[in-house]
Amino acid sequence: MKKYRVGILGATGLVGKEIVNTLYQRRFPVSELIPLASARSAGTIQTFGHESLTVRQAEPDAFEGMDIVFASAGSSVSKVLAHEAIKRGCIVIDNTSVFRMDDTVPLVVPEVNSHALQKHRGLIANPNCSTAQLVVALKPLHDAFGIRRVVVSTYQAVSGAGNRAVEELYMQSEQVLAGQEAAPQVLPQQIAFNLIPFIGNFLDNGYTDEEMKMTNEVQKIMEAHIPTVATCIRVPVANGHSESVNIEFGRVVSPDAAREVLTKAPGLVVQDDPQHQIFPSPQAISGNDPVYVGRIRQDVSHPQALNLWVVGDNLRKGAALNAIQIAESLIAQGLL
Amino acid sequence: MKKYRVGILGATGLVGKEIVNTLYQRRFPVSELIPLASARSAGTIQTFGHESLTVRQAEPDAFEGMDIVFASAGSSVSKVLAHEAIKRGCIVIDNTSVFRMDDTVPLVVPEVNSHALQKHRGLIANPNCSTAQLVVALKPLHDAFGIRRVVVSTYQAVSGAGNRAVEELYMQSEQVLAGQEAAPQVLPQQIAFNLIPFIGNFLDNGYTDEEMKMTNEVQKIMEAHIPTVATCIRVPVANGHSESVNIEFGRVVSPDAAREVLTKAPGLVVQDDPQHQIFPSPQAISGNDPVYVGRIRQDVSHPQALNLWVVGDNLRKGAALNAIQIAESLIAQGLL
Repeated sequence: MKKYRVGILGATGLVGKEIVNTLYQRRFPVSELIPLASARSAGTIQTFGHESLTVRQAEPDAFEGMDIVFASAGSSVSKVLAHEAIKRGCIVIDNTSVFRMDDTVPLVVPEVNSHALQKHRGLIANPNCSTAQLVVALKPLHDAFGIRRVVVSTYQAVSGAGNRAVEELYMQSEQVLAGQEAAPQVLPQQIAFNLIPFIGNFLDNGYTDEEMKMTNEVQKIMEAHIPTVATCIRVPVANGHSESVNIEFGRVVSPDAAREVLTKAPGLVVQDDPQHQIFPSPQAISGNDPVYVGRIRQDVSHPQALNLWVVGDNLRKGAALNAIQIAESLIAQGLL
Repeated sequence: MKKYRVGILGATGLVGKEIVNTLYQRRFPVSELIPLASARSAGTIQTFGHESLTVRQAEPDAFEGMDIVFASAGSSVSKVLAHEAIKRGCIVIDNTSVFRMDDTVPLVVPEVNSHALQKHRGLIANPNCSTAQLVVALKPLHDAFGIRRVVVSTYQAVSGAGNRAVEELYMQSEQVLAGQEAAPQVLPQQIAFNLIPFIGNFLDNGYTDEEMKMTNEVQKIMEAHIPTVATCIRVPVANGHSESVNIEFGRVVSPDAAREVLTKAPGLVVQDDPQHQIFPSPQAISGNDPVYVGRIRQDVSHPQALNLWVVGDNLRKGAALNAIQIAESLIAQGLL
């Protein structure tokens, strides 16, 4: 079996670390793993299984001889370095938002549109965390019943904002419990025992870029016109994004019919047992690969709509796992 | 000015205490305040302004000579004692769900339907916390533009489940921060750094009673057919309920037009400034009377819909304040 020289751009970030761990857990065929980060983090040690690897500085020539690069060092870094890697013959799977809506760049969730990888030109975009888990649930329902519209409200974990935000959640929580002030430094407002009612930057239409990513990426990944509106809220949960999803169909869909379709769908686990109060929660599913769906029920306000509760590990399916699944799909399709 | 003998049934609970505090803060015309609770809490001392009052046992004859009773001791207590109080000439403002959908009992949010008090027969129901703040925002929009459908996802604080649940949130948070197990005892699942994706008990249609309360109470208070569907989620916030609300109208409504109507509406404060990232959050508004609205924007998935973010103090407008406003409205209308 062919093995690959794999670069991790942004290796010291939460997603970078999760990629390294997930590559190891999934026994991805790695001949050599090369962690790359900013000059500040270069020289630190990172473990890959039983190996200790020295983090190298991310610069154009570092990509020489690599087969594949997982990039999660932020948009400004990807803008500069992704093309340097491609120039040197690498395939880049980029976790930032800069290339996602570029028509020449496939935006892929393998359960949904792995065929789009066929047209790649060296660069593949990994979707936004909250989009990835959503489309895994939407795709089988759209194929079976035809979706007309999606209204989603998110409950997004702090790990989506990185290492330092998670530390801030815990530090602020200790401060609040001790009766002290909890001043925000990383996130824009206090997150401990609070909600932050926006994620990212505001656009002219009153939406955040995080919300419009969901609207736009759903269309591109699903390759269908599915009007989608999102309200993205940060909640004081360390890891695991949750979504309250209302879906309108072109016809009446019973919860049982939806449940049957979802149960058979790839990458999904249905946890939907009101009698025993078993539904997915972020704390329970953090660290797991699948996307979980529960609270499936007929919309009492609309005869052709259903409600779902969708929970996924935003560092896994929302980032690292999906990126690696893209690489695995490239291999399976003979594209890497 | 006439003063009233006021009974507080469930005086030692979170809502009971908030009623006592709010009566004092609003200078409600009290001649005597009588705190009532179960035998277990009888004999304890409760403060009302500068007075120290001994909590009496809640039993039928305790209501003798009272003018008005605020009941928040739970459904089973109200079922038994509300009618005993009415029999003895009291007006009962009941905070439990048992009488809310009874056709002979007005269900009132004074900003919305204070006229319904005219038909009271001694008993007035206070709506569910998450309904009260929602209808304060819906009413002016419905009057101005005509609402066709409402899809709401809630982010409900732990104080809605009472004293012991709030203690559990803090205790579990300390346990998680110390790396210990956080076993649930009061709430059905771990709430610290987690979400509980249901509130209350499950009905046959897959909804919880909490969710169907919103669906049903909105119709009754608004006195209009407004199909409403709710997903009710518990979040690790001590106090203050938040709601992501999608509203479909009979025609196109611009965010500016909605903002103008909401700004003039009673009981509402619009906090909606993307440029300075000023929107309501539960931590910021906890302890305040008004309902706050922000994130007002055109639905990108539907030409005739808007999204709003509605935050209110569930112990205040969601419970104690609304109950006292009902009493104040009774006085203003010469009904008490």
